[in-house]
Formats: sequence, C-alpha cells, structure tokens
Amino acid sequence: MSTDFQIAATSGPARFGKLITPHSEIETPVFMPVGTVATVKGVPQDVLEELGVQILLGNTYHLYLRPGVETVRRMGGLHGFMSWDRSILTDSGGFQVFSLNDLRKVSEEGVTFRSHLDGSSHFFSPESAMEAQIGLGADIIMTFDECTEFPADRERVRASMELTLRWAERSKKYFEEHKSEVPWSSCQLRAISCQEKQIPRFARNDNSTRNDNSTRSDMPGGDGGAAELRPAGQPRAAVPTRAEQTQALFGIVQGGMDRELRRESALRTVEIGFGGYAIGGLSVGEPRELTREIVESTLEHLPQDKPRYLMGVGTPEEIALYARMGVDMMDCVLPTRAARHGLLFTSEGKISIKQARFAQDGGPLDPACGCRVCQRYSRAYLRHLYASNELLAQVLNTVHNVSFYLDTMRAVRHSI
Amino acid sequence: MSTDFQIAATSGPARFGKLITPHSEIETPVFMPVGTVATVKGVPQDVLEELGVQILLGNTYHLYLRPGVETVRRMGGLHGFMSWDRSILTDSGGFQVFSLNDLRKVSEEGVTFRSHLDGSSHFFSPESAMEAQIGLGADIIMTFDECTEFPADRERVRASMELTLRWAERSKKYFEEHKSEVPWSSCQLRAISCQEKQIPRFARNDNSTRNDNSTRSDMPGGDGGAAELRPAGQPRAAVPTRAEQTQALFGIVQGGMDRELRRESALRTVEIGFGGYAIGGLSVGEPRELTREIVESTLEHLPQDKPRYLMGVGTPEEIALYARMGVDMMDCVLPTRAARHGLLFTSEGKISIKQARFAQDGGPLDPACGCRVCQRYSRAYLRHLYASNELLAQVLNTVHNVSFYLDTMRAVRHSI
Repeated sequence: MSTDFQIAATSGPARFGKLITPHSEIETPVFMPVGTVATVKGVPQDVLEELGVQILLGNTYHLYLRPGVETVRRMGGLHGFMSWDRSILTDSGGFQVFSLNDLRKVSEEGVTFRSHLDGSSHFFSPESAMEAQIGLGADIIMTFDECTEFPADRERVRASMELTLRWAERSKKYFEEHKSEVPWSSCQLRAISCQEKQIPRFARNDNSTRNDNSTRSDMPGGDGGAAELRPAGQPRAAVPTRAEQTQALFGIVQGGMDRELRRESALRTVEIGFGGYAIGGLSVGEPRELTREIVESTLEHLPQDKPRYLMGVGTPEEIALYARMGVDMMDCVLPTRAARHGLLFTSEGKISIKQARFAQDGGPLDPACGCRVCQRYSRAYLRHLYASNELLAQVLNTVHNVSFYLDTMRAVRHSI
Repeated sequence: MSTDFQIAATSGPARFGKLITPHSEIETPVFMPVGTVATVKGVPQDVLEELGVQILLGNTYHLYLRPGVETVRRMGGLHGFMSWDRSILTDSGGFQVFSLNDLRKVSEEGVTFRSHLDGSSHFFSPESAMEAQIGLGADIIMTFDECTEFPADRERVRASMELTLRWAERSKKYFEEHKSEVPWSSCQLRAISCQEKQIPRFARNDNSTRNDNSTRSDMPGGDGGAAELRPAGQPRAAVPTRAEQTQALFGIVQGGMDRELRRESALRTVEIGFGGYAIGGLSVGEPRELTREIVESTLEHLPQDKPRYLMGVGTPEEIALYARMGVDMMDCVLPTRAARHGLLFTSEGKISIKQARFAQDGGPLDPACGCRVCQRYSRAYLRHLYASNELLAQVLNTVHNVSFYLDTMRAVRHSI
C-alpha cells in the first residue's frame, strides 16, 4: 500500500482527516511548506520538526537540474539526502517548466526547455517526470500536467485539458511499472523498522554500503547493534512494516476557469484512478472570487474518500477558507518568500518589519503567537536584523511565518 | 563588583579558569564568537546556547551606526535587544575605525571618520566610545585605542602607543564616572534575580513599561506573578544579587612588533589599572612566528591574576597554541566568515565543501564532531546547499565551525 486517508470528523464540507504515508501520519487539512531544493530556505530540519511540519514539498524541476536526480537517489532519495524522515510531496516539474521558461516547445511527447541555471536544453515527459520523482522518492508524487495559461479561450483550455489527461494516463502507466524502484523499497524499510529512536544516519562500521539499492537480511530488533548495519542514507521508518511500501501518485485536474471543463477533467481523472486528486491551474492571475468558485465546483466532482490537494495557495485567510470548503492539502511559497522580504503574517494582520515604526518597538512580533521567535525576540530586533540585511532575519522571519501558517491550519482542524 | 576571575588549575603557563560576569560564568580559555551587529550571522540565540557559547562579541562601531546606541540602550542594552542573557564583550570601535575607513583624521581628541554605510561623518573619542559601550551594556568593554598599522617604524609605534595610553586614561576616567548608567543597573538586576526559569521577556500585564530606566520595588520571589511585573527588555540575571553590578573595563596593550615597547605598554597599562588586559595590534599582517613571539613576551608583563585577552585570532591551531601559552580569551571572525564561504574546519583538516568530490559523499562532515550538523547531514547535502547558494548552507556551516572552535577550546581546558 502507499497512502491511506481516513476522515475522522466533518463539519459541513470540511474534513478533519489523517493522511498516512510510508514516513509519517499527517493531520489534515494541512499546509505544506515549500522546500524547493531540499531545504525550506534558512530553516534547519530539526526546527521544522519542532514547528510540527509533517510534510513538505520539493520541486522536481529544480532538483532535477541541481543536484540531479541520481545524486539524490544514491543518498536514499530526498528523505536520506536532506535527512528528513517525515513526509515529502514532489510536484512533477510541469508548472516550473511553464512558469520559468519562456523558450519551451510543447509536443505530444513532452516539453523541451532550457535550464534557467545555465541554458542547457532538457526534455520532460510524463515518463521522465515519473522516473525523476521515483528517484527522488517522495511519499506523494504528481502526474506530469500542462498548467493552462490564463487567460485562454475555451478551445485552448479544452486542448490543454485533453493533453493533461493523456499525460496522466502515461504517468500512471510508467509509475505502475516502475514504482518498486523507489530508493526506500519495502525490504529496506523492514530492516530498519525495529529501531525505536533516531540514530545517526551514518553506519559507523559499515563504510562499504553507500549504494541504497543494497538489501539486508532481517535485523535484530531495536538494539544498538542494528545501528551499525544500517545502510547509509536510509531514513527511519515511522510506521510499522507493511507488505508493500510505495509512493502514491496523485492526479491533477485542469480545465481553466470553465466549470464544465473542470467537471469533465475531474471525472475523467478519477476514471483513470489515483491515490488523491489535485486542483491545478489556479492562482495564475485570475480574480480570487473566480478561484473560489472553481474550487468549490470542482470539489463536488472529486471523491470524498481521497485527499483533495489545492496547489499553489494561498494567504492565511485563503487557506483557512479552502480548508473549510473541503480541501485537505495546500502548498504555497507565500509564507517563506514573504518572510524573506520582511513581510510577516500576524494575528494583527500582515506587517512589514522593515518599517521605521518598529525600530524601538520592544514588543513581540505577534503577541498571540507561541513560536520561538515571538517568545524571544522583539520587533525592534527583528527590524534591525532585516534592515541590516542579516541572515538571521531570513531565518527568524521564515520560522515565524511557517509557524503562523501551521497554527492557522491547526485552528481550522480543531474547529472541524 | 564587575568581573571576577578565578584560576582553578594551571599547566605550565596555561590556566584553566572561571570568568564570572554579571550575566554568566565562563570557563577559560574561551573563544568568543563574533556577533557583529548583535547576531552571530545566521545562528539563532537558542542554538548558540545549545552549542555552549557563554560569551560573544559585539562591535561597537557597527552597532553605533546601526541600529544606534540609543535604540539598543532602550531595549535594555545588547542583552535585552538581542535576547541574550549570557555574557557579551564589546570592542571599542577603535579597530574598525582604522580598518574600515580610509578617510579618517586622527587627533589627540579622537578620530573623525565616515560611515561605511552612508558616508556620514562621525567622531569617536575615548569618552564617546565609553559612552557608547555603557549604553550597549556589554559585561566587558574595551578602552578606545589606536591600532598601530603594520609595518611601522619605531618612532611611529612609540607615538601610537603613547596615544593609546593617554586614551586609556581618559577611557577609564569616563568609565568610572558613568558606569552606573549601564542599562541593567544593580537595582533592576536585584528585581529579577529571584526568577528561576527563563520567562518570556514581554510582561503580559505591563504594557506601560517600555523604559528600561524604570525601577521596581522588590519583587516577590520566584513565582509566576513576578513575570508580570518584569520590566520589558530586562534579561534574566544568571548570578545571585551582588551589591554593585557593573561592567568591567579592559585595557589594551599596543607597541607594534617591538618587544621593548610592548613591555612598556603592558607595564604602563597595568599601572593605570583595569579589570583585564588585551593584546591588540596583532594579526595585522605580520608573520605568524612574530605574532607568537610578541604574545609570549607580552604575557610575561601582564598580571597573573587578571584575564588576558588576545584580540583577533585565529585558526584552530593558533587558538589552542595561545591558550596553552597563557591566553584566557580570544575572538576572531574566522570560523563564522570562513563558514559563509564554505570553508569548514574538521578533525581531518580544513575542507572546502563546494568541491565536486563531495557531491555524492554520504558521510558526515566531520566523523569526530558531535555537533547537530555532523550528526544529521551528509557532506553531499552540505555541498548541495552551498552550491545552490542556499541560506541553510550559511546556517549549518556556521553552526559547525563555531562548534568546532568551542570543542577545540574545551579540549584545551580539559588538558590543563
């Protein structure tokens, strides 16, 4: 099995649920911080753990370019590479290929594009996007889709949607044929599942094992000896052994701003059959009210018993709104990117910490926030750090904003 | 009293000691990380605490320019401003005035210079440097000296040394007359000394108290109620109440590379009388062997019962060497600055993490290091972070290098 989803309570269309992946259990609705190139910028993994992050997002497009899929695969996938043993979701690269690359050529086969790093030419297809995501080893991976531009006329939206559906079929086909190649295959998980506590990931007496494809005979349970035989790069399994541990593949609904096309895309995507369903192609410049309408109508056509993932949203108000509408998962660069620009979300509204009025403000950033930043540092200090272009500004601002988003979701879950 | 220094053991010229300031107790020999503008770049204060940092250094020149002494003073001095309740040492600004400013004019009165930030004109004198350091409120502050350039002929070195001695007299005079103005004066320390645990620094029921000069009647001891009356910005006192809590002023020995002048400077500085003695004007381009000679001969003329502080050194090998020669305190930007350039000190030597040979190295940065970075992350990941110009590279690299320096000192202390 790959991913299990259980709904524990509902309140209107909202669902309080539990998403169980091979690596961790995630309460939903959940907001997933974006860790683009295997790092949530400036925040070490132990701090993410303390904040209660259960799942984060990695970008396949960026990781494919640097450090490359093979490097990550050899380290045991993203979990081993970035030393994160909770859950990870990767997008397929479809969005960045469109948003970061002006010079691109779309064909039935896939997309040719140039690296924004060095201009080198690359090609993504449903098959290669699946291959990359299997190598990266996230718990949840996404089909390779075409993110329809906005605005677009109906014929264009239909053509784009149809292409996405054909690519979804190909994504699923490749995935089913190759999913056992995930770097943390079940036999390796079984070997380390008995370990009770987090141990250093480096096997002290086992310098020879750097190949994550090695398998081990069954380990003795839970003793120090097991640590020495642990394959380098293998993260601790958070769940007991299961017969078949694999990734889950989610499909993506497109259809632009057309409710009929959205309905059709949803039904036909469900017909193909995936572990969960995302709503893509929104927050691409359309008015917020239109986003809300499309989300609301699309949700009606997605199965109740599978997670629903709204991609690329939003502000704290928006994520709370969509969660109450029945969305289970969301991601957005907003909290982390805004933080790095000194824009901080608080219970008193959004503030720009660089403003002079904070220069001698000895109060906490957000009096209602329990995060380590608000518990320790003053607005004056945070303002000074940002005005001085200090690294710590980036770090502390990001910690707070992520905490605020997680708190927002926590409050919504409690209210359901 | 201000600062107490007790020698617990010796081994040849080396001393294992304890430096007790109004804020914390510091085992010596000690290496002080540099927190230039009230932050050790990229590393939050709680991580510094976990690493075991007991004292860090702030630069008066930089803080004077931004955010300004008054802003810091109103927040309770540096301790309150940066939420650090262990020890802090500030330099006087003398060195930066010389090293960062080509257009400067030295007179008997002081130094006129231009801000490297915006070119505005400023003037530093012994009196204003003391005023600034009192406002910043570090536990240990430094006299305003002239850092003699290298190379310099004997006449120039003598003239510079004599100026430093006259400025030392003026520094001490001003300090003695104004030291009670330190933002954490003894009456305020007494008020909070009963608090057993770290409490949020923001007094929940006391929105009116933002002025650190307010005094309070005696507090009830150690209960939750005391927290509500705590003046905003006051750090927790780490030591029991003492009758007179003030800063300590250290003198600085100059004299260039001339052993006779160094001897004279030392004796005459001791004659003025300070809480401790620093050796300045070294690591300014002279050969390492000369540095060692000057340090060794100068130490002979400094009193045994006061701390000896060698400013601006060095590599891990050097700080261990000087510690064994009888130096008690050192500071240097090297570990933190090198970290930000991907140069990491390890038990296997210095490595440049950006090198391609680490791209798939799944081993720890330093197998012998117990820091959180080496316990969790691989060289491949650290290399990826640095190559990708990620914030986390700066953070993790700095945490490791600081840890390495502290471990180096810890080992020296144990060997004494």
